Amino acid sequence: MRSISDLSQASPPFLCTLKMPAPAQFLDFVDKSKDAFIQRLSDAVEIPSISGDPKHREDVFKMAAFLESQLQAYGVETKSVPLGSQNIDGEELTLPPAILGRIGHDKNKKTVLIYGHFDVQPAELSDGWTNPPFKLTRDDATGRLYGRGSSDDKGPVLGWINVLEAHHKLGLALPVNLRFCLEGMEESGSEGLDEFILAEVKKGRDSWFDGVDCICISDNYWLNNRTPCLTYGLRGLTYLKLTVSGPGKDLHSGVFGRMVHEPMTDLIAIMSKLVDPSGKILIPGVDEMVPGPTPEEKAIYEKLDYSIADVEDSAGGKVALSADKAAVLMGRMRSPSLSLHGIEGAFYGQGAKTVIPAKVSGKFSIRLVPPMTPDNVNPLVIKYIQAEFAKLGSKNKLVIEDLHGGKPWVENHKHWSYEAAKRATEVRTFHPNSPLALIYKQTPDLTREGGSIPVTLTFAEALGVNVLLLPMGRGDDGAHSTNEKLDISNFIEGTKLLGTYLYEVSQA
Amino acid sequence: MRSISDLSQASPPFLCTLKMPAPAQFLDFVDKSKDAFIQRLSDAVEIPSISGDPKHREDVFKMAAFLESQLQAYGVETKSVPLGSQNIDGEELTLPPAILGRIGHDKNKKTVLIYGHFDVQPAELSDGWTNPPFKLTRDDATGRLYGRGSSDDKGPVLGWINVLEAHHKLGLALPVNLRFCLEGMEESGSEGLDEFILAEVKKGRDSWFDGVDCICISDNYWLNNRTPCLTYGLRGLTYLKLTVSGPGKDLHSGVFGRMVHEPMTDLIAIMSKLVDPSGKILIPGVDEMVPGPTPEEKAIYEKLDYSIADVEDSAGGKVALSADKAAVLMGRMRSPSLSLHGIEGAFYGQGAKTVIPAKVSGKFSIRLVPPMTPDNVNPLVIKYIQAEFAKLGSKNKLVIEDLHGGKPWVENHKHWSYEAAKRATEVRTFHPNSPLALIYKQTPDLTREGGSIPVTLTFAEALGVNVLLLPMGRGDDGAHSTNEKLDISNFIEGTKLLGTYLYEVSQA
Repeated sequence: MRSISDLSQASPPFLCTLKMPAPAQFLDFVDKSKDAFIQRLSDAVEIPSISGDPKHREDVFKMAAFLESQLQAYGVETKSVPLGSQNIDGEELTLPPAILGRIGHDKNKKTVLIYGHFDVQPAELSDGWTNPPFKLTRDDATGRLYGRGSSDDKGPVLGWINVLEAHHKLGLALPVNLRFCLEGMEESGSEGLDEFILAEVKKGRDSWFDGVDCICISDNYWLNNRTPCLTYGLRGLTYLKLTVSGPGKDLHSGVFGRMVHEPMTDLIAIMSKLVDPSGKILIPGVDEMVPGPTPEEKAIYEKLDYSIADVEDSAGGKVALSADKAAVLMGRMRSPSLSLHGIEGAFYGQGAKTVIPAKVSGKFSIRLVPPMTPDNVNPLVIKYIQAEFAKLGSKNKLVIEDLHGGKPWVENHKHWSYEAAKRATEVRTFHPNSPLALIYKQTPDLTREGGSIPVTLTFAEALGVNVLLLPMGRGDDGAHSTNEKLDISNFIEGTKLLGTYLYEVSQA
Repeated sequence: MRSISDLSQASPPFLCTLKMPAPAQFLDFVDKSKDAFIQRLSDAVEIPSISGDPKHREDVFKMAAFLESQLQAYGVETKSVPLGSQNIDGEELTLPPAILGRIGHDKNKKTVLIYGHFDVQPAELSDGWTNPPFKLTRDDATGRLYGRGSSDDKGPVLGWINVLEAHHKLGLALPVNLRFCLEGMEESGSEGLDEFILAEVKKGRDSWFDGVDCICISDNYWLNNRTPCLTYGLRGLTYLKLTVSGPGKDLHSGVFGRMVHEPMTDLIAIMSKLVDPSGKILIPGVDEMVPGPTPEEKAIYEKLDYSIADVEDSAGGKVALSADKAAVLMGRMRSPSLSLHGIEGAFYGQGAKTVIPAKVSGKFSIRLVPPMTPDNVNPLVIKYIQAEFAKLGSKNKLVIEDLHGGKPWVENHKHWSYEAAKRATEVRTFHPNSPLALIYKQTPDLTREGGSIPVTLTFAEALGVNVLLLPMGRGDDGAHSTNEKLDISNFIEGTKLLGTYLYEVSQA
């Protein structure tokens, strides 16, 4: 590993030969293609591929076809793999396909598997977006591209397409063999994908994953808005839905108020017993699964390039749970968290509707860290909620559903793939034509991420190779939230980083 | 007051002369106009006049114009009265007009003021409606008309239009002078109406309400599905909105979970402290305002034609708070109630969105009975919620808004207007041409209603005359809920009842 201090003592020409294996013509191509790359991202954002909403299932298919044609255009052999169907409220809904791709079969080159997803979270203008979420809004004043999926995960996936286009059009051979596995259900539990991966791996020599040396996933974010990072850990997730029902239909609160057991009263009572305002999880045995940090471990968090001000800037409000930076970072990286997301079936509009909703479903999820798994956490949650519901003495009915989940993951960050990504992040600053090169002038932070990408663990376990998370977006991109954005500089420099990473891998 | 037992001992021809002042040709006209009347209701339901949703404000205006033209068509002089504007999230929105009407200036006749409203509650197919809510669905098998506003309150308002049409087309003089005051903001706090009524009354001889002897409002429901009723009491209401905010935008729960104070956690904590699952209001001093019933008062409730099975049939589920009929009825009629309606700003869709909502507003309301008023209840609620919020130790912000409210009302039910309505309900069974006449073969129950029609009290206080609530719909109509309906028989027989009531008033 070369550090910035090494580089600063050597002369640029020498360094360019030794330490910047990505050809200048690739980097130039990327710079010159900025508008075209943004246009492609715009085309992608306009397809509202919301996997969690059956009404938009067709759009997820449309997005799959869009990406498959892009891959093919740049010489990638593809395969659209049907993943079966899912049952939603009694109806069978076909799952979007996984899109596989492969290019390069050179045994002297390393083989890198790229994973990404082309589905997005729901978004509506009425949620508080400044601009329509499914139209990419380019703001050159701030250098930002706003739109659902811009950063999570269409931008990063198109970053790889950008790399392919550049090599294809320049007639450059890729420095490694590439394999792609792109899915359309990531935001909805990656349904169908795990089974496919496990079955595919069993095919051995015939598997599209045969010969893969390492895996790279761009689907998370820098810790802050300054410092690139490499991520070697992810929290897991268990997402649950509590449905309380009783009346056969919504009731008028004047006519029925104080005559019947109201589902909302019961649901709110249960939801209030899951987490306290300090973030402590109230379900017995859950927080207790994770041992507290040693002083040494705490020191790691104290060193990261991050401050309480960063947290609050990213969140857009002075709402950090503590003034202790390490405590706040550990809350995200090494602690479980429980968030209450909302209620389906209750009144959610503007105005004042005097309804007693008949059937309400509270949604919440718990982020998991080792040794927690959905399998060891869910029974504690279900037992506790059933016991608390019984205490209410209500005649309403409670149903608890496990919507989806995934185990947490921690990787070896001293692997050559991580070292290659570290070098790629550092050397980018020596490309003279990039006005934005400054952003990468540092050694990346090594982080664990608070979110989940459950397939990371599936790949790691099924293929037995190292997985690297190499984020493109910044900490304030607002994935899953209103006004999600990707900085233009991150899209363009990130594209260069992905390409440069492949060259570094080829020399590792 | 004549009872059914008196009538059963007399011969029909004699009774028809003595006790059925409504002319047979009026009743026949109503029977023969069934399809046309239903078509008019269908036209009205198709106008989604949701007063609580700014997007539908134009439809409320459209509905006002629809009714004004109907009144004019049948000889009623009208006036559309602008009621100013309201401020919604910083934007001024013009209020729908009140539609005034007058027909008849005969000093030898009594003058009856009719109030009704032409706005409706929100409704979306996705709430669980079987058919589109803004299309009247006629089901001749069950004899029902489904649609938002069918029973609350377009059906009853059109009942009066039906009466006017019959008299106009038959060339019959109305037995009383009629005055109309129809509004378009009833479901949103009757904004602007109180001020107008008070100002109008002050005009004395020039007031459209000059000379009014009594007021009749058809905007509530039978207690059950069998027995018509006259209603002499209403609960009041205070509707509150609690907004908790902190982050500047919605956040990803993976990235921010356990780093920041989550508005949903705080809001749910507060909402859980308002009411318990047995219906008891947890805000100190609120339930305590209402003295418990004397044994004598409890006996009134035990005598009403109502059972726990009725409650549960209407509610569509076995969810009555108690097996004690009187206790359940008192819960509705003489007790306050607190209902949690929903949350604005949180995730409400299908699927599993892992969002930390940035700003969430909990909506709840308290139904009030004497001596409670918004003025004496709100301070208790606000003080309690602020104190409970302070205990949470959250950095988020809390704002409490009073969306609307109204005082409770109790009327003298021995007044001649009530006696007239009672007789009209009883004698209808002697019209030989109505196959549906059976439903009115009884003395109506005298009830107090759990809902609020705040303008009732305004009229009672401003005009100083008796107000009668004469419901058209049944206890299972589902006002404010999914699949709201009005029975065809109630619409047609109800139209006859309204007309007959006017004849009984003319003889009182």
